This record gives sequence, C-alpha cells and structure tokens, in this order.
Amino acid sequence: MRASPDPEAPHAGPDPEARVRASFAKQGLMRTLGATLGDVASGAVEIALRPNPAVSQQHGFVHAGAVSAIADSAAGYAALTLMPPGAGVLTAEFKINLLAPAAGERILARGRVVKSGRTLTLAQAEVFAESGGREKLVALLTATLMAVQGRDGIGD
Amino acid sequence: MRASPDPEAPHAGPDPEARVRASFAKQGLMRTLGATLGDVASGAVEIALRPNPAVSQQHGFVHAGAVSAIADSAAGYAALTLMPPGAGVLTAEFKINLLAPAAGERILARGRVVKSGRTLTLAQAEVFAESGGREKLVALLTATLMAVQGRDGIGD
Amino acid sequence: MRASPDPEAPHAGPDPEARVRASFAKQGLMRTLGATLGDVASGAVEIALRPNPAVSQQHGFVHAGAVSAIADSAAGYAALTLMPPGAGVLTAEFKINLLAPAAGERILARGRVVKSGRTLTLAQAEVFAESGGREKLVALLTATLMAVQGRDGIGD
Amino acid sequence: MRASPDPEAPHAGPDPEARVRASFAKQGLMRTLGATLGDVASGAVEIALRPNPAVSQQHGFVHAGAVSAIADSAAGYAALTLMPPGAGVLTAEFKINLLAPAAGERILARGRVVKSGRTLTLAQAEVFAESGGREKLVALLTATLMAVQGRDGIGD
Repeated sequence: MRASPDPEAPHAGPDPEARVRASFAKQGLMRTLGATLGDVASGAVEIALRPNPAVSQQHGFVHAGAVSAIADSAAGYAALTLMPPGAGVLTAEFKINLLAPAAGERILARGRVVKSGRTLTLAQAEVFAESGGREKLVALLTATLMAVQGRDGIGD
Repeated sequence: MRASPDPEAPHAGPDPEARVRASFAKQGLMRTLGATLGDVASGAVEIALRPNPAVSQQHGFVHAGAVSAIADSAAGYAALTLMPPGAGVLTAEFKINLLAPAAGERILARGRVVKSGRTLTLAQAEVFAESGGREKLVALLTATLMAVQGRDGIGD
Repeated sequence: MRASPDPEAPHAGPDPEARVRASFAKQGLMRTLGATLGDVASGAVEIALRPNPAVSQQHGFVHAGAVSAIADSAAGYAALTLMPPGAGVLTAEFKINLLAPAAGERILARGRVVKSGRTLTLAQAEVFAESGGREKLVALLTATLMAVQGRDGIGD
Repeated sequence: MRASPDPEAPHAGPDPEARVRASFAKQGLMRTLGATLGDVASGAVEIALRPNPAVSQQHGFVHAGAVSAIADSAAGYAALTLMPPGAGVLTAEFKINLLAPAAGERILARGRVVKSGRTLTLAQAEVFAESGGREKLVALLTATLMAVQGRDGIGD
C-alpha cells in the first residue's frame, strides 16, 4: 500500500506513510489507549484498538471518546497524507454518530479524504467492530481538518 | 450542590450525584485518562483533566479525542441526572468544535442539558483550558443522548 | 428502479416509491424552492434543484439553507423507504459540510441510508453541482432520522 | 441597538447593522421564504419567519430546511458583524438539532458569536417557536463561518 518513492523526484515531498508513522508515534494518547496504526495510503489511513477495561465506558463497551479518538486520528492522518510538506494537521471540528455498542475482538477505524483543499480538508472515518470474522459498522465520523503552516511547533 | 434526599420519599429515585459518581467510577477510560469528576448538579456535570504526555496529540496539546471523551461524559452525565431511575445513558451522536489548542494546567468540561426528553436529550459541554488563573474556551460539544430502558447490562 | 410489487404479498406494505412521492407532494417548501423528486429506490432518493435568484444567498450562489433543505429531504426520504407502514419520518438532527459554492445548471442531492434502525436511522446525502456535463461534490450531509409511530398527524 | 457611527472615524469600517441589512436584502432565499431581519447588534442577529404552507414539510410543520436556512443566516450574519470590512462570509459547515416541531405564530432564530477568529468563526443560533405569548426552543444550530477576503464577487 506504500507508494514506492520515485528516484527521479527526490524533492517530491516526504513519503506519506513515513510521515504519518512518525507523527502517530508522537501521539501519547494512541499509546495510552493501545491503538495501533494499520494501512497508510494516500488519502486513507486505518487505526485499530482492542476493547479492554482501560478504554471502557460504564457498561463495558468501548467509550465513545476512545472510538472518537481513533476515528479522529484516522481521518486526520488521511488528510495529512495529502498536505504539503511542512504543514501540520489540526482538527477544526468533527461529528460522530454512534450506531451500535463498540465491542468485539477489535475496533477498526478507516479514515479517508472526501475533499482535500488548501486550508480545509473534509474526511470521514467508518468504525467497525470485528467479532468472529464479521465486521459491523458501529460509528461514522465526519471531520474538518486544517492544514497549519508556519506556526511554531506545529508540523507533521 | 447535592440535593438532600427527602426522608419521607425513600422511593423517589436515586440521588443524582450518587448515581453519576457510581457510573463514572465504572468508566475505565476516565481512569486511564486521569479524568476526575467535579461538581454534579441536576442537569449539569463537570469533568476535569490534567494535560500530560499520556493524553497528547503529536504537537503536545491534549488530543481532540481526550477532549471529546471528557466533554462527551460531562454532557452524558448531565443528561443522566434527569433520566428516570433504571435508565442507562448512551451517546447517539455528538459534534465538537475545537477552537484553540487544549493546553494549560487543567482542562475542564462543563456539561449541561439543553432539552431533556423521554427518549432523546440534547446536552452541550463547554471545555475550558485553565492557565495562570485564567479560563479560555477551547471546545464546544453538542450531544444527543439516549435513555435506554430494559436492555440487559445497560443501566446507570 | 421501482421494485415490482409481489402479487402474492398484497399486504407487504406500501410501495416505497409511491409512498415517497405522495409525501414529497405535501412538502410546500420543495414546491416553493422548485425542487423536484428524482429516482426513488429502496434506501436511496434523489432531489434536484435549479439554481435561480429565488434560492440564492447574497453572492448569487444557492443558499446553504436551500442546499440543506433538498439534502435533508433526500436523506429523510431514503430513510422512509425502509420504515414500517404507518410510520412518519422526522429529522432529529443533521450536519452539513459545504465544500464549494453551489452553482451551475442543476444541484442534485443523493440521499442513501447508512444504517436503518427501529427508532433511529442514519442517512447521508451527497450534493453535486452539475455544469457543462460535469459533476462536482459541493456538500455532504449526515442526518439522524426518527421513525414516529402513532402520533396524530405524523404519518407518511 | 445600532451603534452610532463616529463622525471622527469615517474609515473605521462599515456600520455592522447597515452591512448586514444590505447583504440580507440580496439573499433571494430569505425573500422567497418570507423571512425578515430583526435586531442586529455586534455579534448577534435575529431572523424571523411566519409558518405557512409555502415553507412546510409533509406534516404541516415548518420544514427543517427552512428552519436551518434562517438559523444559518442568523449565525452567519452574527459572525459578519465582527469581520473586517471587505470580507465576505461563507458557511463552512453547520449542525442542527431539531428538538420539537416548528409550528406556531412565528419562528425566531437568534444567532450569536461564540468565538470569532481571523479565518474561522464559531456561532450558534437558537430557534424558538412563539405561540400564545410563549416561546419554545425548537432547534439549536452550531455553525463554522469563514471570512473570505479578496475573492471576486464575495464581499459583504
């Protein structure tokens, strides 16, 4: 899923996958939640989480906040893959619909860019609960991401 | 802020504050994030979080997912204080606008009910970053909460 | 696009297309805007609008409110096609991202159900501006629709 | 409610109320819906609508699209009052919760700015249905508005 770098175009900008992996590694929250980065492609990023008591809400399901965290990161990193080198990505707003309790063996957020713009990018993330070899859609997030350039300490 | 229980009405339903505190204690994610429950009143609940690397995004600010988690719980528990005994609260959807980087000494989410209904409740949470004795609004969440009754394992 | 009614199952419920067309004809706002109902299938409904000064905002584009109106109706009627006979459909909430000015020869909202539930249905509508034979995505709406049963005057 | 222009500062920028009234007069959709502009103050704008069959949905209530249209305009114009001269206002996204059927003698949207920024402004609009001298909250909209500068044909 990783595009091979073109040896004739060494200044074409950072490898999107390396860029996302380096930024993801700095997200303390993802480590705290036990979330892992999956496939990274141009405009599409996956993040997974294993349900466990440390990320639960009061009925034992994965907390809406944890579902939102991986979905927001998946959407944000999908946006980042299409941003110019040096830009950082910030979430301006998102909306999430929680369709079913998040439970099972694995929760997988699949982010993809809907429309990429110079300043604002619209991305969505579908979140699936995997159980017994089956996938169930449990949440849908829509996010507006902002490309931030030339601000101290904000670069990805 | 806690209404004294009326000794003449022992069956009037659970004390809202005790109900929220008991449910909050079961949210593994709140413990993992280091979030603490603040004031609990009828229709209004506060949750606080101390910024630290374990809840950060890649630039060192508190991750939008952690901000959303405490804001969603604050809004949801504000809704729960007005739900009938035995009902459980689930988030159907929420939307959050992130207005400024969440950083400082403390992040405080103040949830309050906008309109309480039989099945659906609308609540908002304002999230403030406290620093040097000043408060700054950093996020605004709007959530639709559902009262769930008679479903196994879902009660608060 | 219309499923042929099964002659062996005369009580299977109303024809989805007839049901949507009958309800759409009662929406005064759609007539006022000059909106027209397009294809109606199970879980998917299209509504079109011709840009003109009567539906404009101040810069001459189609007003976000008019774009929202056809997108909300398209999503809502997509949901209605999957609701039990006698139920009426109401919008509980929606969110819309406006990606580009809505202008051109025709604005087309394509609603489709994401997840249909007993009480709540999640649907999306993509809105396209058509110009010179090309389509451009100008808005994305996500809506929560409620099936209302047994309430006076609310049936579709 | 209108600030008197300072005769000593003729270049201080347009009078916010005159600016909003001039732009509102160009919104063909507001005229088509029969919506009227009410109070305009710095950071706060009201728009009213009389329920009638031309703005209805299929059960006779005011259509969610018409409610959204006046709420979006009220929020957008509240934002415009705080934008620099020459800037135009566009809605980037909004979310609306519909709390009760919009019906009665008058529907009133009250927009106010939550946070005003250089590029993005967050505003909310509460929508009330007035009936028999009483007001009922029927909808709550949250919108992200963008200040657009130096783009042909977009100025308010």
